[in-house]
Amino acid sequence: MTEIRSRIAARLYLPGTRLPSVRAQAQAMKVSVSTVVEAYDRLSAEGAIAARPGSGFYVVGPVAPLALAHLGPSLDRAIDPLWVSRQSLESDASVLKPGCGWMPPDWLYETGVRRALRALARGPVAELTDYATSLGHPGLRQFLQRRLAGAGIEAGAEQIMLTESGTQAIDLICRFLLEPGDTVLVDDPCYFNFHALLKAHRVRTLGVPYTPTGPDVERFEAAVQEHSPRLYITNSGIHNPTGATLSPVTAHRLLTLADRAGLVIVEDDIWADFETTPAPRLAAFDGLSRVIQIGSFSKTISASLRCGYIAAQPGWIDNLADLKIATTFGGGRFAAEVVLLALTDSGYRKHMEMVRQRLAEQMRKTITRLEPLGITPWLVPRAGLYLWCQLPEGRDAAAIAQSCLKGGVVLAPGNAFSPSLSAGGFLRFNVTQSSDERVFTALARALA
Amino acid sequence: MTEIRSRIAARLYLPGTRLPSVRAQAQAMKVSVSTVVEAYDRLSAEGAIAARPGSGFYVVGPVAPLALAHLGPSLDRAIDPLWVSRQSLESDASVLKPGCGWMPPDWLYETGVRRALRALARGPVAELTDYATSLGHPGLRQFLQRRLAGAGIEAGAEQIMLTESGTQAIDLICRFLLEPGDTVLVDDPCYFNFHALLKAHRVRTLGVPYTPTGPDVERFEAAVQEHSPRLYITNSGIHNPTGATLSPVTAHRLLTLADRAGLVIVEDDIWADFETTPAPRLAAFDGLSRVIQIGSFSKTISASLRCGYIAAQPGWIDNLADLKIATTFGGGRFAAEVVLLALTDSGYRKHMEMVRQRLAEQMRKTITRLEPLGITPWLVPRAGLYLWCQLPEGRDAAAIAQSCLKGGVVLAPGNAFSPSLSAGGFLRFNVTQSSDERVFTALARALA
Repeated sequence: MTEIRSRIAARLYLPGTRLPSVRAQAQAMKVSVSTVVEAYDRLSAEGAIAARPGSGFYVVGPVAPLALAHLGPSLDRAIDPLWVSRQSLESDASVLKPGCGWMPPDWLYETGVRRALRALARGPVAELTDYATSLGHPGLRQFLQRRLAGAGIEAGAEQIMLTESGTQAIDLICRFLLEPGDTVLVDDPCYFNFHALLKAHRVRTLGVPYTPTGPDVERFEAAVQEHSPRLYITNSGIHNPTGATLSPVTAHRLLTLADRAGLVIVEDDIWADFETTPAPRLAAFDGLSRVIQIGSFSKTISASLRCGYIAAQPGWIDNLADLKIATTFGGGRFAAEVVLLALTDSGYRKHMEMVRQRLAEQMRKTITRLEPLGITPWLVPRAGLYLWCQLPEGRDAAAIAQSCLKGGVVLAPGNAFSPSLSAGGFLRFNVTQSSDERVFTALARALA
Repeated sequence: MTEIRSRIAARLYLPGTRLPSVRAQAQAMKVSVSTVVEAYDRLSAEGAIAARPGSGFYVVGPVAPLALAHLGPSLDRAIDPLWVSRQSLESDASVLKPGCGWMPPDWLYETGVRRALRALARGPVAELTDYATSLGHPGLRQFLQRRLAGAGIEAGAEQIMLTESGTQAIDLICRFLLEPGDTVLVDDPCYFNFHALLKAHRVRTLGVPYTPTGPDVERFEAAVQEHSPRLYITNSGIHNPTGATLSPVTAHRLLTLADRAGLVIVEDDIWADFETTPAPRLAAFDGLSRVIQIGSFSKTISASLRCGYIAAQPGWIDNLADLKIATTFGGGRFAAEVVLLALTDSGYRKHMEMVRQRLAEQMRKTITRLEPLGITPWLVPRAGLYLWCQLPEGRDAAAIAQSCLKGGVVLAPGNAFSPSLSAGGFLRFNVTQSSDERVFTALARALA
């Protein structure tokens, strides 16, 4: 037992490995078969290994240190960010997903994507089969340059790099700027995959309470002074999950604090095209000096064709491009091509206008439908998909989510978004995924 | 000066940051303007900061520790793996690229991709706009399962996960299994991006000399005993850059050593469809216990549509899926859909047959064309794109590459592939990118 335990500890037997058969082990260790049987049985009882009937014994742990599940304290499954993501990504059409982070497929720019595909099917071969350049499709980068300029952000073409997704954009930035053990500020609550991503970088995540006008500036300042964070990651425009909007005064105060402390800010701008009245952008105030803006097109054009971007100061982009090549090699030229065709298509503007109208209507309907259940919005957002809602006093969102899941309804319980686990009484609703009556029946049953 | 230096060292002033204006700095530090002017001037002279006319002073270094350029000893640009990759990825059509790692766009499966695009442009909306499931497109995973079975590798559907690329596949495995400071074995020479990728993981890379039948087993054994590596990364089928083929006896001996030492092996199988006679697969001998197989379709179907895979034991796949979601979120459903349609298209087999014939012919021609220059193949490969060639005695590949680059010819100098920098007299030729006469004119001029 000691020998096997030490091999597991030394990762000579890696997690998931099948142990040698009892007979082989007995021979190798020069002990009797019954000794090995006894050792395997006891190690199974301890949970170090596990028997799979008809197949043998497998190493259970310790998992290699980078396995996410074992970084930091383990969470209740219902509020584990990765578990919530995986529930939403599983595609059983019979399941309802008011907790899912994106819109149903037919809310995206289907017409534009189909038109782009037909055009590309007849287009030059290099677009269909060749790698993109290091920074990515020049045409899409030029388009982004103009769009950024429209938001008051001056960026040269050498300041924009395309990525495979918004998440990959943040991941590359973390690889570039962070070391294990660094502290990173996020909003409390914030997009739950930020937690999972930061865990993978083995940094400490610290939440700053989010108010209807942005993070609480006093708490932000205290956190900066006490913990010397390297990075602050936030949503601009429409905040996920609260739907709140950063006010200009908060933006200015955040930047002053960041400047003083040498803090870098990552501004995730994926909701830009959902805004009805544009909110201030940290990147515009700061001129892409210590603010890095990232974005993607998964929420508007297509999540099936992966494409995101990073806008930052030129020296950083060069390093980020090296990291991108090292870790994913060339980018996808095709996805960028489709995105550019769809964005510059005459129908895109009209499509998004219609989406914003449908969203406003769905928002109203969802609020009305939740009201009789005693579920009330923390804030009525100006735009976007999300309603951050408070449950009736004393009700636990994780328990409600577990119960609804049995009835085929995937919810997003508050603590999946809260680094301090202080949102146990909240649920995030995606109004585009909440039109089916069965969502509310399941909620009523769970609350009863 | 001391204060500013210490702020740079503490990363309070990050590389690329603009320093406060002279006036602002003087006020903040409560010193005279002329003191700041003098300090900035001296720091510029030292190279710690740099003046940009009309814009101010910027921090030059030290760059954050994860910036690749600063990990490990810096290399001559001509043999820096990232520099070689970036040269190939830049798409100026007038440049000739015998050093490039892939085939020209029209050698890939253009017809199949066009046909798939037309079909998808008419297909269900979810394929065009929705995320893939956590493990990726079920149909493509089933196809891969059958293909693996054909190569003698039994894998359940839960043992296969799709990724955005072959490189991302290896990156996820490194994230899962490695810690900074671990040792990883590679072949010497090996695919140069392995070096860049491993550098990003801050592990130690150790090369084992590659022979015409696989890595030198005695040296492999000595390295395992002396350095306790965690991982060995290699190509199967057709080795990059040598074009050599692993022999069954070497495969068996490697696996015995790996088993004894608890070493995990990553087998990069991207060249499978280029083989004319199938070589042994480590994953087949081992049954996906400690061998992980990865692959992609960038070399056969399209590099523009990103899609790769990992086949490994089930417990590992589950952890790798969590890491994938955390760091890139959902995968690309569309690219997998195109790849599956192209692979199962009745024309694919015939297309690859034609590619293999063209390759054999190009291989012969390239050898004939290099011979009069005194450039000789280390081995005549059975199949594939690459010719690993020795230059005339005493000639330096990096110098030849630098000289040819000025003439618009991108070469791949040997030491970009060699962790021990012992391949200074070698060049890798991609025969599909070596048909233009100007390649040989440039080489002749550089050698003269």
